Amino acid sequence: MAHPPFLSQEAICLYDTTLRDGAQREGISLSVQDKVRIAHRLDQLGIHFIEGGWPGANPKDDDLFAALRRQPLSQAQLVPFCSTRRPGTPANWTEMFQPVLAANTQWVTIFGKSWDLHVRQALQTSLGENLAMIADSIRFLKRQERRVIYDAEHWFDGYQANPDYAMATLHTAIAAGAEWLVLCDTNGGTLPPHIGAITKQVCQQLLSEQSGTITQPRIGIHAHNDSETAVANSLAAVQAGAQMVQGTINGYGERCGNANLCSVIPNLQLKLQYPCLQESQLAQLTAVSKFVSEIVNLAPDDHAPFVGASAFAHKGGIHVSAVQRDATTYEHIPPSQVGNQQRIVISEQAGLSNVLEKAQRYGIVLDKQDPTSRHILRQVKQLEHQGYQFEAAEASFELLIRQFLQQRPHFFSVLGFEVVARQHQTVTECSTTSMATVKVVVQDQEVLTAAEGVGPVEALDQSLRKALRNFYPGLEALKLKDYKVRILDSERGTSAKTRVLIEFSNGQQRWSTVGVSSNIIGASYQALTEGFEYGLLLKQQESWPSPNHLERELIN
Amino acid sequence: MAHPPFLSQEAICLYDTTLRDGAQREGISLSVQDKVRIAHRLDQLGIHFIEGGWPGANPKDDDLFAALRRQPLSQAQLVPFCSTRRPGTPANWTEMFQPVLAANTQWVTIFGKSWDLHVRQALQTSLGENLAMIADSIRFLKRQERRVIYDAEHWFDGYQANPDYAMATLHTAIAAGAEWLVLCDTNGGTLPPHIGAITKQVCQQLLSEQSGTITQPRIGIHAHNDSETAVANSLAAVQAGAQMVQGTINGYGERCGNANLCSVIPNLQLKLQYPCLQESQLAQLTAVSKFVSEIVNLAPDDHAPFVGASAFAHKGGIHVSAVQRDATTYEHIPPSQVGNQQRIVISEQAGLSNVLEKAQRYGIVLDKQDPTSRHILRQVKQLEHQGYQFEAAEASFELLIRQFLQQRPHFFSVLGFEVVARQHQTVTECSTTSMATVKVVVQDQEVLTAAEGVGPVEALDQSLRKALRNFYPGLEALKLKDYKVRILDSERGTSAKTRVLIEFSNGQQRWSTVGVSSNIIGASYQALTEGFEYGLLLKQQESWPSPNHLERELIN
Repeated sequence: MAHPPFLSQEAICLYDTTLRDGAQREGISLSVQDKVRIAHRLDQLGIHFIEGGWPGANPKDDDLFAALRRQPLSQAQLVPFCSTRRPGTPANWTEMFQPVLAANTQWVTIFGKSWDLHVRQALQTSLGENLAMIADSIRFLKRQERRVIYDAEHWFDGYQANPDYAMATLHTAIAAGAEWLVLCDTNGGTLPPHIGAITKQVCQQLLSEQSGTITQPRIGIHAHNDSETAVANSLAAVQAGAQMVQGTINGYGERCGNANLCSVIPNLQLKLQYPCLQESQLAQLTAVSKFVSEIVNLAPDDHAPFVGASAFAHKGGIHVSAVQRDATTYEHIPPSQVGNQQRIVISEQAGLSNVLEKAQRYGIVLDKQDPTSRHILRQVKQLEHQGYQFEAAEASFELLIRQFLQQRPHFFSVLGFEVVARQHQTVTECSTTSMATVKVVVQDQEVLTAAEGVGPVEALDQSLRKALRNFYPGLEALKLKDYKVRILDSERGTSAKTRVLIEFSNGQQRWSTVGVSSNIIGASYQALTEGFEYGLLLKQQESWPSPNHLERELIN
Repeated sequence: MAHPPFLSQEAICLYDTTLRDGAQREGISLSVQDKVRIAHRLDQLGIHFIEGGWPGANPKDDDLFAALRRQPLSQAQLVPFCSTRRPGTPANWTEMFQPVLAANTQWVTIFGKSWDLHVRQALQTSLGENLAMIADSIRFLKRQERRVIYDAEHWFDGYQANPDYAMATLHTAIAAGAEWLVLCDTNGGTLPPHIGAITKQVCQQLLSEQSGTITQPRIGIHAHNDSETAVANSLAAVQAGAQMVQGTINGYGERCGNANLCSVIPNLQLKLQYPCLQESQLAQLTAVSKFVSEIVNLAPDDHAPFVGASAFAHKGGIHVSAVQRDATTYEHIPPSQVGNQQRIVISEQAGLSNVLEKAQRYGIVLDKQDPTSRHILRQVKQLEHQGYQFEAAEASFELLIRQFLQQRPHFFSVLGFEVVARQHQTVTECSTTSMATVKVVVQDQEVLTAAEGVGPVEALDQSLRKALRNFYPGLEALKLKDYKVRILDSERGTSAKTRVLIEFSNGQQRWSTVGVSSNIIGASYQALTEGFEYGLLLKQQESWPSPNHLERELIN
């Protein structure tokens, strides 16, 4: 069945707010460097607008914009987010926009109130003053040569309560120069038919009134998932005329989350024929979903549509043979289109080309016919089954490949360690100390060192440095930049497996390693030693600068 | 704005398949007794049809029907599920229905193929034989005096591929005596507009052709969440004329899950005015969601719409005071309608009224004028600044308040601990061991114990149990259900602070505690001891049931 009313060839503009609205989810806390990494990954994916945060409201957000000026995005527009001015035209009201202007971006997103209830109850001001706030703020930004996206907060509730006033806020934003009007379902309570009907009315009204003005504003949608319909709401708005979708990776966001771009994008592009991304970009979607979940340190949702590990999983029996005869019998899309894969008989061929492709990124050329390639693949699968994850630990992956190719240099070997953590509590004070002893062989010498640290992992780090520093003087430059712990099978309580990711830096490059063990100290030690090893490998390569090395710098 | 095209007063029939389709989710494994408990809870909730399983296909399912004959449901219809007969009219083909008949129910659900591709590829038979299979099977069940619900598998794909053949399967089922025809989106790939359009076409075609037949079949919808639109798909079908919704509690199901009844029901009833449940039943929804997640042993999704712990969570500031003035400003429905509650997130912005309101929920009455209240607030802010997070650790919060009010019972005190983690690596193997020693004072006795564990935290858990068990025999029931680690300021590497959250259960109630330290072992130990303490507090309260305790039971 064709679906004429839904077919369209118009491209949809993708606006990601993972770094602002997504980070509002309870439990997410991102460093500036985390945000930089996510922004660059979204840029590669082909997202058109990336909302970085609210400069001025949060010092970390100022730092992010500064960091992204030093390491600019290649395609995407980075956008700061801010509010209209406060009610009552305070003196020096333009000052609140200084941090936003300092972000030095082409575009700015500004949000204002659409709902009369909110103007009166939350802002405690008059309906007229709210219009003045919208007009003044947008006009000011336009005078500063910013292009403006206007987020109409609580749009759908506002329009249902008082359509004339709600429309007046949009007209005000248009007259002041906003190029995009984004209809926000801030409380997430509106259902798809209402979203569709109201969006259509807005598009029609604006179209019929637009002849006189210069700007031709376009409409966007910003949906929340409180009714479990954020994805359907976004699609309904697009089918009614919206041309921008705001959402987050994995649907992160406060309360029940935002519209999940990982589902919105494939639905729009593969099912409704609205182009969003290039095919090769869409095929990165599963990897991007995993990457972001690693960085925000939340377990990936295996049951997530399109990108989850179970999204194309098939159980045995007739079902599987039917899938093998004709995958369309049980799969709504070919999983490779979103970079996912059918899971039962994991196509060894597909897995193999992944490994080859990865190795190539490190400048290691593997031959598909070489049995070593198959050995590597088998080992990777086995390790992944044990809980390893190389998505965010590419240094560990490179060491693994080098191991098989006998290209892994031998800087030191570990014979063992012991860590003691001790707490002594008295009435007046409680002190915790950690001490670690490590035994390594370096350049044929057995070295035994001990050191203290505030925690067991720092104690290990310190004693390993002590053991190696006489042999490898460059090691002082090596710093631990990030340390993340994830409990796998967390339902098993304290006996569950632990995965540790550590990020290192030598001041110029960054790299990450992974360790897995049912013992958190064991997992940490594994990631730690691989991180030191990789640092030494980089140092060794410095003497022979290679294209491989240069490429790595570009990535980091 | 009223929404005339969507308004309807027709009651919707709710069909739950948590016990069959829901249990297909990877990782769910239910005993017969688990299933009996879930069935009775769904019966209380007011679900109309409860699908118990496929008798004959699985011996556990036979046992379930037997168990439910001994402990029958009070209102709901229990339904067995089965397939049409096999192709080729095998001899004694009716035998496969014997276990279904033995279930001794009034209704039976039978599924058949609607999609020509599937008839040929999966069944490897002719289109005509598939119609005969549908007719024979339903006629046989009717002769055995069963009322029949017919699940049209792969309906939407089948109808789009070959509408005439798909309609022929429905006509066959009607002629054979099926009373309900359930349109299944088995692969979950169809989007709401298509679901709505096709359902409408089916309803119209059947209505115009029904004059001659005796039965007046009604239409149902069975949606899967592969496009993240299962809830919207179910609503679209109802708005197009479907009168039954099949789904599962919490949306459990294979791949990406089934339509989530916890979202479908409130959307239908509260937003689209289709009556489903009595008001008092709907108010059990949050409790039922938690109950089922306990039984299937999956952590509840805090971000679940309507029933999640964060669904009506608000962070501090102006936002909270606006919510307190008028909840409709930031809440799409009153949370009490689904048995949930507003949650003012205790966070760094926490104000005095937040703290008082929380304390009140634990049955602790605090006076705003009492200086103790301000001391508690100051302490909460200070701890949050140090990295504590009480959002997900309400047991620790309650202990803190009790401490200030001198209502914190004294079960034991910790004098100190020592943990040793040791790894020894040889050419052939690498072993890691952990051992913990703890020293506590219990009932004026100093106790020193040691224990081993796969990791340092398990070793601590074990030695603490050893120290306490002679004094508090109930402790065996206490289990660690979840253990989470987050590194704060992770940029500081291994010397960063660590926050540990531990969730405990005593089989009936769950509670969570938090520990923060720059030493991961210290943070774990702190959360561990508070968890034990809170468990003992719950046990102590059992002997003196109090309103506080009763309230907690209702919540859990």
